[in-house]
Amino acid sequence: MQAEFKQRLAQFRARLSAENHEAALVFSPENLRYLFNYSGEAAYGVVSQDNLVLITDYRFVEQAQEELSLVDFHSQVLCRDRDRQSLGQAIAEVLQRERARIVWYEADHVSVAMWSAIAADNPLVRFSPSPGALEQQRKVKDIWEVAQIKAAARIADAALAEVLPMMKIGVSEREIALELDYQMQQLGSEGVSFATILGFGARSALPHCIPSMRCLQAGDLVVLDFGAVVNGYRSDMTRSFVAGKPSAQQKAMVDTVFAAQQAAFEVLHAGVAASIVNAAAASVLQSSPFAACAGPGLGHGLGLKLHEQPFMNAICNEHLMQNYVVTIEPGIYIPGYGGVRIEDDVLITERGFEFITAAPKQFELAL
Amino acid sequence: MQAEFKQRLAQFRARLSAENHEAALVFSPENLRYLFNYSGEAAYGVVSQDNLVLITDYRFVEQAQEELSLVDFHSQVLCRDRDRQSLGQAIAEVLQRERARIVWYEADHVSVAMWSAIAADNPLVRFSPSPGALEQQRKVKDIWEVAQIKAAARIADAALAEVLPMMKIGVSEREIALELDYQMQQLGSEGVSFATILGFGARSALPHCIPSMRCLQAGDLVVLDFGAVVNGYRSDMTRSFVAGKPSAQQKAMVDTVFAAQQAAFEVLHAGVAASIVNAAAASVLQSSPFAACAGPGLGHGLGLKLHEQPFMNAICNEHLMQNYVVTIEPGIYIPGYGGVRIEDDVLITERGFEFITAAPKQFELAL
Repeated sequence: MQAEFKQRLAQFRARLSAENHEAALVFSPENLRYLFNYSGEAAYGVVSQDNLVLITDYRFVEQAQEELSLVDFHSQVLCRDRDRQSLGQAIAEVLQRERARIVWYEADHVSVAMWSAIAADNPLVRFSPSPGALEQQRKVKDIWEVAQIKAAARIADAALAEVLPMMKIGVSEREIALELDYQMQQLGSEGVSFATILGFGARSALPHCIPSMRCLQAGDLVVLDFGAVVNGYRSDMTRSFVAGKPSAQQKAMVDTVFAAQQAAFEVLHAGVAASIVNAAAASVLQSSPFAACAGPGLGHGLGLKLHEQPFMNAICNEHLMQNYVVTIEPGIYIPGYGGVRIEDDVLITERGFEFITAAPKQFELAL
Repeated sequence: MQAEFKQRLAQFRARLSAENHEAALVFSPENLRYLFNYSGEAAYGVVSQDNLVLITDYRFVEQAQEELSLVDFHSQVLCRDRDRQSLGQAIAEVLQRERARIVWYEADHVSVAMWSAIAADNPLVRFSPSPGALEQQRKVKDIWEVAQIKAAARIADAALAEVLPMMKIGVSEREIALELDYQMQQLGSEGVSFATILGFGARSALPHCIPSMRCLQAGDLVVLDFGAVVNGYRSDMTRSFVAGKPSAQQKAMVDTVFAAQQAAFEVLHAGVAASIVNAAAASVLQSSPFAACAGPGLGHGLGLKLHEQPFMNAICNEHLMQNYVVTIEPGIYIPGYGGVRIEDDVLITERGFEFITAAPKQFELAL
């Protein structure tokens, strides 16, 4: 793990230097975790060629010292007294010590109000928005990161296996979701990857259905989308079910979604354009009877954030590279009737891909 | 509930008009919930004197329509195709329709990058940062809001009563925290108010201790800080315990914290300066043997957000008004030894205050 953090930092510093910047301010929680191994809140990072400084306050200083020391023994934690020193002043103190005058900042991860105040406290610094260097770097997962995502996915697989026997006529969406969240945490997940999505019947057509007291009825379609978290790394999986024997329409829906996912898998390998992968799935959906009800977008990168680059849709002009981790999640959503979505996480390899999610894709629930 | 939402909107529109603005852009999730009753993500609100428009996309459009219709039948949901229309263009479309040229935006709740793009799409609009009008309004809770916070607090009280018997020698912080979170949700909480804080022994001195596998040992101090959520409204309560008979030092710590909290309660009523309430508790802490280890700050407002205005500390120059809901949470944190914090939520009334949290403050655990 230390070797991976060292390598990440070296890569980022090389880019900083190549683009003629002397330091970078890091605000995003995911980037702070990626570079500093810091998992708390209320912290702001400064990266120069020589130093790594994390500015926080008394609430998080012990946690910061402990977490940073696990990956880098040269980093420093600056504990700011918020009643006496503004954040901008603390940043000024560090930048002056580092003699940094040309500095990146994460314009995507700082509010207009906070940034105005920081800039006012640093009148002599030439700031420019960071070109998203860390987000780009994070698209390629290192071995340690892949291991964390796999561990999260294994937890999610196991929790689903525990909870699936509860999926009987009369159970509510909320009961199942709550039990699944509990099982994932019992199995070691840090909270949940995102608020579990579960819809029965017509509600399964809502792409982000919040579990309600709606109870499972015979014939219902079911969409369940959830994930676990290990060391900050997330998994993300969707399974669809039908309560009993599927109708012809339900069977056609699930067959179409499986075929769309399979079409995407068939073109998946390092170097392929994301738009090609999207088109492979889209052509199956668009030539089906459900063309009007196909969800836009095929999937997204996955890691410290649930939704990371690349975002795979019709207008994405990126190529998928080796050691990207992405979701492949085609779906059909018929308003007022129901939906089917199947989502797996995959690791892109030189010749193809490797499944990260492993839960069976059994469609008919044993009632 | 409809009456309360109508009143909130009228109050905000009066302020908008008094300050000569024609519309306001609302970005904060809490303010969207407060004005629109919208609880989803990826949405942006436009408030004019005549209309309420929520801009979102296909993932949240049904949820938005349903939630908005519960409180206001004149609001509109604009479903943006994110591949074809930028957020700034969607905002421009609405502002042009409303003929709004002088517009507030929430500079605290939009990133520099997102705001640059929105502003570029709206070159003829005169934008200025909102003066936090909604945050100020939200300090005074209406009857419906107080009922939600009370409901959340009752859930937290009941969940603690369920879980307390598990607090035995050998149980881990994580086991207790996980069970508490589960019980709150079983009792109707929407997730948890914040990541439950639980520390045993020396770890109880960490103000934001993340539950670990550390097991309870005889003589440990315990700090447990947690809350439930009902309709977006949060509760926030801390209880401290000792595993067995307290030592003289532990007894002195808890007596001091109780006395500090009591001193704050004695001066609490509508109209009192927050600095007076803070000073009342601080004087007890500062004249105790634990002066050097007293936590800064006494409490905070509570509602849709866990930490809201007013922030009660030595430099706060606000007065507490009727129907504010605030926490009162003095604490002593001795690094390497342990901590004690007691926190209750109270509703400020004309003559005094009303407790919202009701869990007993028994210090000694029955082991």
